[in-house]
Amino acid sequence: IQSKLPGVSTTIFSVMSKLAAEHNAINLSQGFPDYPCDPKLTELVNKAMNNGFNQYAPMPGNNFLKERIAEKVKNLYSVKYNPDTEITVTAGGTQAIFTALTAIINPGDEVIIFEPAYDCYAPTIKLLGGLVKTYELAPPDYSIDWDMVKKLFTSSTRMIILNSPQNPTGSILSEDDMKSLVKLISGTDILILSDEVYEHLIYDGQEHKSVMLFPELRKRSFIIASFGKLLHATGWKLGYCLAPEQLTKEFRKVHQFNVFSVNSPMQQAIADYIQEPSNYTGITNFFENKRNYFRGLLAESRFELLPCNGSYFQCASYSKISNEKDTDFSMRLIKEFGVATIPVSAFYQKATDHKIIRFCFAKENLTLQLAAEKLKNV
Amino acid sequence: IQSKLPGVSTTIFSVMSKLAAEHNAINLSQGFPDYPCDPKLTELVNKAMNNGFNQYAPMPGNNFLKERIAEKVKNLYSVKYNPDTEITVTAGGTQAIFTALTAIINPGDEVIIFEPAYDCYAPTIKLLGGLVKTYELAPPDYSIDWDMVKKLFTSSTRMIILNSPQNPTGSILSEDDMKSLVKLISGTDILILSDEVYEHLIYDGQEHKSVMLFPELRKRSFIIASFGKLLHATGWKLGYCLAPEQLTKEFRKVHQFNVFSVNSPMQQAIADYIQEPSNYTGITNFFENKRNYFRGLLAESRFELLPCNGSYFQCASYSKISNEKDTDFSMRLIKEFGVATIPVSAFYQKATDHKIIRFCFAKENLTLQLAAEKLKNV
Ligand SMILES: CSCCC(=O)C(=O)O
Ligand SMILES: CSCCC(=O)C(=O)O
Repeated sequence: IQSKLPGVSTTIFSVMSKLAAEHNAINLSQGFPDYPCDPKLTELVNKAMNNGFNQYAPMPGNNFLKERIAEKVKNLYSVKYNPDTEITVTAGGTQAIFTALTAIINPGDEVIIFEPAYDCYAPTIKLLGGLVKTYELAPPDYSIDWDMVKKLFTSSTRMIILNSPQNPTGSILSEDDMKSLVKLISGTDILILSDEVYEHLIYDGQEHKSVMLFPELRKRSFIIASFGKLLHATGWKLGYCLAPEQLTKEFRKVHQFNVFSVNSPMQQAIADYIQEPSNYTGITNFFENKRNYFRGLLAESRFELLPCNGSYFQCASYSKISNEKDTDFSMRLIKEFGVATIPVSAFYQKATDHKIIRFCFAKENLTLQLAAEKLKNV
Repeated sequence: IQSKLPGVSTTIFSVMSKLAAEHNAINLSQGFPDYPCDPKLTELVNKAMNNGFNQYAPMPGNNFLKERIAEKVKNLYSVKYNPDTEITVTAGGTQAIFTALTAIINPGDEVIIFEPAYDCYAPTIKLLGGLVKTYELAPPDYSIDWDMVKKLFTSSTRMIILNSPQNPTGSILSEDDMKSLVKLISGTDILILSDEVYEHLIYDGQEHKSVMLFPELRKRSFIIASFGKLLHATGWKLGYCLAPEQLTKEFRKVHQFNVFSVNSPMQQAIADYIQEPSNYTGITNFFENKRNYFRGLLAESRFELLPCNGSYFQCASYSKISNEKDTDFSMRLIKEFGVATIPVSAFYQKATDHKIIRFCFAKENLTLQLAAEKLKNV
């Protein structure tokens, strides 16, 4: 049979986590915690199951959870989303991204993405017959020249995908970036998919500039968020999509035939849990400390750390250590040194070789310490 | 913005469940139990969460669960599926259907479906640019004339969607049906999507004729199954897809970018639970008894019951009661009599008016009794 995704193989995150397990390596590759989530949270799932939340949730999401999401968004950003018509609960951030793209992209539509990028954007666009227009970000700061972005605009440009804080680079979009984007996009009918799953993971007192803060952007944006990242439970696969009514309507048309609805007891539990904001507001400090701790440990290694303004990923150059391609180098790190990472070339469609790898620091301090000891020998 | 699904509104199951709640009606519309699932099962979820199964499961599914699925399939049908390469765990049957179609259907491809049909097939095909070729089944027995199916074949026919036991009619495909299909399809490269989520719900000693029992069909089939239906926990949104290696490869390419992976603690819990087949083998008798009980109750009403050979749905004609359209009649049933059902016209793309509604009998006997008392007054 002829493949609709001929160039695509298993996503790098699966490959690396599998290799890590096979080689008994410390897994700093895929983005997930190795410590338990809050027992209060799992206890609430237990309660929800015992209270009978085991049948289909409403298609757009548990009503109570949608209200809690609206409250959370209002508290954080002073922006109102209507739970009935503008909020949809999804089976994780990835399903929300896939669903938004599927609802919007027609064959021939162009979508602008910034690379390095989370590896689901490009294949999903291609699967839909869309064309990927890539703006390549350059290390070490991965900043955007918006005049150059403008040059990518054509009459077929349908959407721009943003991701701040960014996976894998940990870079963030500033107020100035957002203002440039507002100027650029005003008067066009280009839509935005804003992947904000790391919204809380932003450091050194900086503030997350959500697209929702800019009316010109908000009105044309799907905003994607993740409870897996927020609650240290990536395996629960719960997230949500915020979008103005017209966009939500199209999103839900696809959502209802894709997954219909999502895990009921966990929606109920999360609704209970986030009702108390102190259950999650500590997350920024928590990860800032981990970032500082990990950077401190690696300072004694030969890796050169890139800036990390957000996300739970730390990129590092190994050009002082080796001249190997990053795929080869990261393989050797697993096999010879027992540490799994992600080669950043995996986040580009075309062949690149910046000699940079990505570490996930959402791990016990002990894990980070053990990893660092191994990495110091490299 | 221009909709990719212009004719589509909110799925009938959401609409009816919402109306049932608003009018405080007994909800025999959407297909889900109103009794608790086994506490042993929820206890296993609790255990899995406490044991740390809260981070990303492997993309194709929990390894232990995939092995248990292979064992279950082998015990039931004496057919072997390889857990590594032929089994993928999904966020429910619907996500599996959506993903299989997305992996295969290109613009212009024709897909044959049998109507009345579960309402996700046709819009998903259209969303992908495919063409829906409909074979209309006729009450009361909804049987298939395979020579007529053959007439729908063209050089663009890419897939046939089967659904046995069938939602909404409760009809099943016999050994003879399957043999006719084998003859029809041999020598073509037409694929099959076999929605077998009601595989265990088949009555009067009849046997489920899975496509996997027929090598000529098995080699070209995606088979969809549902733990929600099997374990009385539709809200957990867990199912799986069986397909030969080449088809699974394409399925997973889409799956990984759609949901990436699915709920981890519940996969682990289900793996533990189904290891003991006696935990689910009683389901056939359980629902056969409910069918018999509900049919017995309605015998005293003016509804005329259609045959129900499988599924947990009972269709009934109200033509002796009213001349209204089924959408109007079912609205009146909710508002005036306090019972929510599904008008069977919702399962057809074109306007039909067979004066038939669908009841779900996956309910407490007391619920069925209360509903029947109300229905006797109609
Ligand atoms: C499915 S992996 C999701 C993204 C992530 O966590 C990663 O980039 O490692
Ligand atoms: C999403 S509802 C799934 C199908 C079903 O249960 C029904 O037909 O009622």
